[in-house]
Order: sequence, then C-alpha cells, then structure tokens
Amino acid sequence: MLKWIMRFTIVKKSKRSKARVGKIITEHGEVDTPAFLPIATQGAIKALLFKDLKELGAQITLCNTYHLYLRPGDRVIREAGGLHKFIAWERPILTDSGGFQVYSLSEFRKVTEEGVEFKSHIDGTRHFFTPAKVLEIQNNFGSDIMMPLDECVGFPCTHKEAEEAVRRTTLWAQTSKFHISNLHTGIHTQHPNSRLFGIVQGGTFPDLRKRSAEEIAEIGFPGYGIGGLSVGEPQEKMFAMLESISGILPENTPKHLLGVGYASDILGAVKYGMDTFDCVIPTRLARHGSYLTYEGKQSIRAARFEKDFTPIDPECDCYTCRNHSKAYIRHIFGAREIAAMQLLTIHNLRFFMRLMQKVRQEILEE
Amino acid sequence: MLKWIMRFTIVKKSKRSKARVGKIITEHGEVDTPAFLPIATQGAIKALLFKDLKELGAQITLCNTYHLYLRPGDRVIREAGGLHKFIAWERPILTDSGGFQVYSLSEFRKVTEEGVEFKSHIDGTRHFFTPAKVLEIQNNFGSDIMMPLDECVGFPCTHKEAEEAVRRTTLWAQTSKFHISNLHTGIHTQHPNSRLFGIVQGGTFPDLRKRSAEEIAEIGFPGYGIGGLSVGEPQEKMFAMLESISGILPENTPKHLLGVGYASDILGAVKYGMDTFDCVIPTRLARHGSYLTYEGKQSIRAARFEKDFTPIDPECDCYTCRNHSKAYIRHIFGAREIAAMQLLTIHNLRFFMRLMQKVRQEILEE
Repeated sequence: MLKWIMRFTIVKKSKRSKARVGKIITEHGEVDTPAFLPIATQGAIKALLFKDLKELGAQITLCNTYHLYLRPGDRVIREAGGLHKFIAWERPILTDSGGFQVYSLSEFRKVTEEGVEFKSHIDGTRHFFTPAKVLEIQNNFGSDIMMPLDECVGFPCTHKEAEEAVRRTTLWAQTSKFHISNLHTGIHTQHPNSRLFGIVQGGTFPDLRKRSAEEIAEIGFPGYGIGGLSVGEPQEKMFAMLESISGILPENTPKHLLGVGYASDILGAVKYGMDTFDCVIPTRLARHGSYLTYEGKQSIRAARFEKDFTPIDPECDCYTCRNHSKAYIRHIFGAREIAAMQLLTIHNLRFFMRLMQKVRQEILEE
Repeated sequence: MLKWIMRFTIVKKSKRSKARVGKIITEHGEVDTPAFLPIATQGAIKALLFKDLKELGAQITLCNTYHLYLRPGDRVIREAGGLHKFIAWERPILTDSGGFQVYSLSEFRKVTEEGVEFKSHIDGTRHFFTPAKVLEIQNNFGSDIMMPLDECVGFPCTHKEAEEAVRRTTLWAQTSKFHISNLHTGIHTQHPNSRLFGIVQGGTFPDLRKRSAEEIAEIGFPGYGIGGLSVGEPQEKMFAMLESISGILPENTPKHLLGVGYASDILGAVKYGMDTFDCVIPTRLARHGSYLTYEGKQSIRAARFEKDFTPIDPECDCYTCRNHSKAYIRHIFGAREIAAMQLLTIHNLRFFMRLMQKVRQEILEE
C-alpha cells in the first residue's frame, strides 16, 4: 500500500503579521487552518454526537492519549480497526502525548530519564509512559497527528524546574524521532514519520522557550506543538513566549498551540503563526450553562431571559440559534435537562468554528 | 379564523381482535396509530434534541402539564406563542391533566370536590388544580390534545378508594366538558371541544372500570384516555381492565392508554382497541445504560461487550446502530459521557417507533 505523507500548504500569508491561511492534508481529510479542534477526550465530544460535530463544520478532533490508554485501552481500539473506526469519526484525529494529563490528573507520578510513572486517576493502577510507549499507543490508535512524550511545568515554576523539563523534553523528542521510523504502520497508510509533531516547552522563560524551539527544530518534525501555555499565566506572557520562538520553527510546518484557549488568546496567537488550537472551554462552559458571544460569555440562567424569546445570537447559523430561544434554553437548563447542555455545546462549538472561519476570511481578504 | 376540528379515521380494522390502524388529524399534523408518544416532560426529550426525535419518525410528543405549569409557567409559554413555539416542536402535542403527577410527585395534597391542593416538588409552594384551571393551563399551552383533571389511585387500593376516585373523576369530567366550550381558543385555531379527551379510571376493579367508562362516554368526548394502569398491577390485570371497558367507549374515537408501557404491554393493549401510548421507559432505560431489543432489555455495561464491535441491533436503522458498536457505547457509558445516553435514547425510541410501525403493518397486511 502506498504510504501517505501528511502535507501542509500555506495558502496565503498575512501582510500584517505572521498569520497565515493553510491546509493540513492527511489520509483522513483536509483541515483548513487556522483551525479549532473540538476535544473528544475519551472518544466522545462531551454532550454532542459526531453527526452534530460534522454539521458544525469541524474537520478534525483531538483525543486524549492518557484517557484512551487507560480506558478502553489502545489494544481494544487497535482491535476495532483503530480510533477512527472505534469512535466512528472518519475525519482527521490528533492525539496528544498524555504528558499533560499525567501531570494534571494522575494521583502520583515519578519522572525519570526513561519516562514517567503514574497512578491511574480511575482505579489507582500503576503505569509507565516512555517516549516509545506513547508512540506505540498512538500508533495503535492510528492517529493522523501524534505527539511525543513531553514534560510540562505549571505556572508559576522556577527557571531551574522549567530548564529541567526542557532538557528532558528534548531528550524524549530525540528518542521519539528514533522510534518513529521503526513503528509498524499497522492500520495506517500514512507514514509514521509524517505523523509525529515535536513539542516545545520552556514555561514562561523566553530563553528556555528559545532553546527548546531550537533543539526541537534541530531534531526536525513535520509539525510542532507548543505546550505548557494557558496554564495560569497572563495572556501577555503567553504572547511573549510565542514571540520568543517566532522565526525559530520552520515556517512551512503547522504549529499547534496545545490547550489554548479563549477567543482572544486564539486571535492573538494566530498573529504569531499558530495554526491550530484545542480547548475544553466551549464544551465545558456549555455544560455549566454559559454561551459564547463576541462580547464574552454569558450565563443562560440569568433571570432577564425568562421571557426572552430571541435566540442566543440572531446572526448565528447553528441549530440552537436557528430553532431555540434563550427563554427555552434557560427553562430546560434550570430544569436540568441534558438537552440544554447539548444545545449550548452546539452553539459554543459553532461559535469557535465561525470565529476561525472569520480569521481565515480576513487573512484571505487582506 | 376557521376552527380546526380534530378528526380520527379508522383505516383498517383487524379481523382477529379489536386492534385497528387509524389516523389522528390535528391542526399540527397527522398521527398514524397505533402510535407511541415519546415524552418531553418539561418541554425537552431527556437526552435528545427534537431534530433527532423527528429523524426517529415521531409524529407527536407528550408534555406534562404539572411540570410545565410549575416551571416555566403556562403564562410564559402563552407569551412565547404557545408550547409548540416555545419548545420549537411544530408537530402535535398531547398534554396530560397533571393529576397523576400531583399524586406521585408533589409533597402534599388535599383532594376536595373542587380539585386538588398540592405543594410543588420544586420549591414547596402551594397550588390548587381545579378542572377549569388545568384546562386553562393546557389552553395556554395550545395543546392539540388536552386531558381533564382526574383522580388516580395506586395499586393496590381498596374498592372504596377506587370508587371515590371514579365518582370524582366523573364529576370533574362533567365540569371540564362544561368549561371547555367557554375557553378562548387563544393561540389555537383548533376548536377546544375537539381537543379535550375524557379519562376513564377505576383501579383494578372491573365493575368500577365499566362504570367509569359508561359515565365518561355518556358525557361524550372526541377521544378517551385510560388512566391509572401500569402502576404496579400485573399485566393480566391491566388487560382484564381493558377487556371490561371494551365496547363501552365509542369505537370511532382514539383511545390513549396513559403511561403504558413495556413493549409486551403495548402489543397486548393494541388488541383491546388502544390507539396511543406514552411511557418514560425507553428514555429512562437509556440513561441507565440499557437498550431495548425484541428479546427484552440488555445492559450495555456488560463485560462481554468490551470487544464487541457490532451494533446493538444490525437490523435497526437508527443513527446509533448505523454508526456505533456496542464496544464503543459501553466504553463511553462507562466513562460517563453524555453522548452514551444520547445514543441509547436514540436507539430505544427508534425501537418503539419501529415496534409501532410493525404493529400497523401487521394489521394492514392481515
């Protein structure tokens, strides 16, 4: 079988910033960038079916390696014929390295040069992630874009801690690059080499970000993830970090800003050449009764909506706004109906899809 | 404006039993009977959007007067332009009388000749339902089919208790019949007279069922509800009750068996001339991880489904069965994903839609 190579094409560069409109072409389809990736952590979008996700215009989704490895396990997924078949989403899938979840979710962890040992947040069992292991897991998934094991630090943290994490992330990136070529392509026809991104760390220290970007770019990957941001630092710090690595990572590669973010984060980051984003905000806010607008988030529970029979956003073309009023959604949210979370999730994800559409449009029309 | 009259047409009578295929024609559309009514208690189907309900083939839904009266209130709904507009479901809606919920949900109740006083299960406020009041509420909703206040007894109960409930139900039916003609049609163009059904009670006593049916038929309604069954009594008792009223209610009217039931209950009741049914079973089971088959319910959580990559029912044409495997649904249900409840709800409701389709088909092909 011919092997697919993931490609990235820049369609148009902005004259005003490093922003660009591009296209990631994978075996499972194309992704117009800048793009927002809705998150299907455990293989399902929270409170949404994949048919609705398609209707929203999503071209790609992100699944979490940590969660799917623990449950149902990558072997079950491989037996199903891969993650696309298992979850019945035939479009591209990006999986993360599991690194961030190990640091943020698992009860216990011990980091060594070889990898990270942790206890499952589900049942307390012990597991060991190595660079080779997380690649094997993601290869069993058949992910279109894979991430190598990295070490993420929180905010705030010391320079020394961040430096140690950068050193280890580079070491693991080298190991990952070595392992990737030896991976059985398995269920996938896309060449593993063209599926593994590199990850830049460095906390909020410009020198470390620069060093990490140089070291990871030196190893060389078809795309890059920028990790460890949007973890509590102020927005200007995040932009300063993107500025500090600007020009180091090869221009003709897609850049994924991991776990970011709010609309304003994304609008800013696009100008530093970031191409793709993922965040739980739109789906999480929906489940808590909030909807997104260009003026920020609003709570649907507000008493003033009791008799407001207008949609959340009359300009929005989502199913929710085309059919339902704020008064109705407020009522069923207050009555704890699951349908309220579904309706708000549809709107919030469509809000991000439309936001990215607008971003692309504006660059194209410059 | 010309006033609509609800009509009922018998398309074909079975030669083997009192079963028939019919059609209820309302201002908001037609309903092929025998039919199952999915329940949108508070104005939303649990874990399902109305677009999905339409895709399942549902022609009518049932909303609960008690719940919608308490929250958001019938005045809000009237201001929205009626229940169809408020919930954005343009097909027919049947609302119940609220009687059953007052007996089963509210914290306190006091029944008098005038009506029933109760305390809200939401906030403890006191309310008083009279025959006129529940008609006014349902008229504010603009329901296509309305039910008069009735008194429902549990199982078991004494002959005396059941007799008292029958007496009061008849009294209230007379009051309701008197009030209905004076109702402002309001947002509705369908004549109120043609929208109010009568309700037969009588517990599990054949003589009381017979008496109730005679008294209610004597008052005369365009359709009839049979209440107070499937409340804990054995199935044969329920069928015996249907047998005891058989031939008393006018043949050319639709009969709704309130709150029933399991597939086998429905298959049996159709043979006694019952035309429509409603029950929370398919949606409730779904939320608890069970799916329906012709062999009964099954739990999706079963360990044997871990690597079962086949659909719940390969013969089923629902979105769930066309796209997802038992292994996937088991995984996301175990991971507490809302999508699992959505997928099982779709299957279970479609199961009932297909069951009713089959029932109609079999009568038509006799």
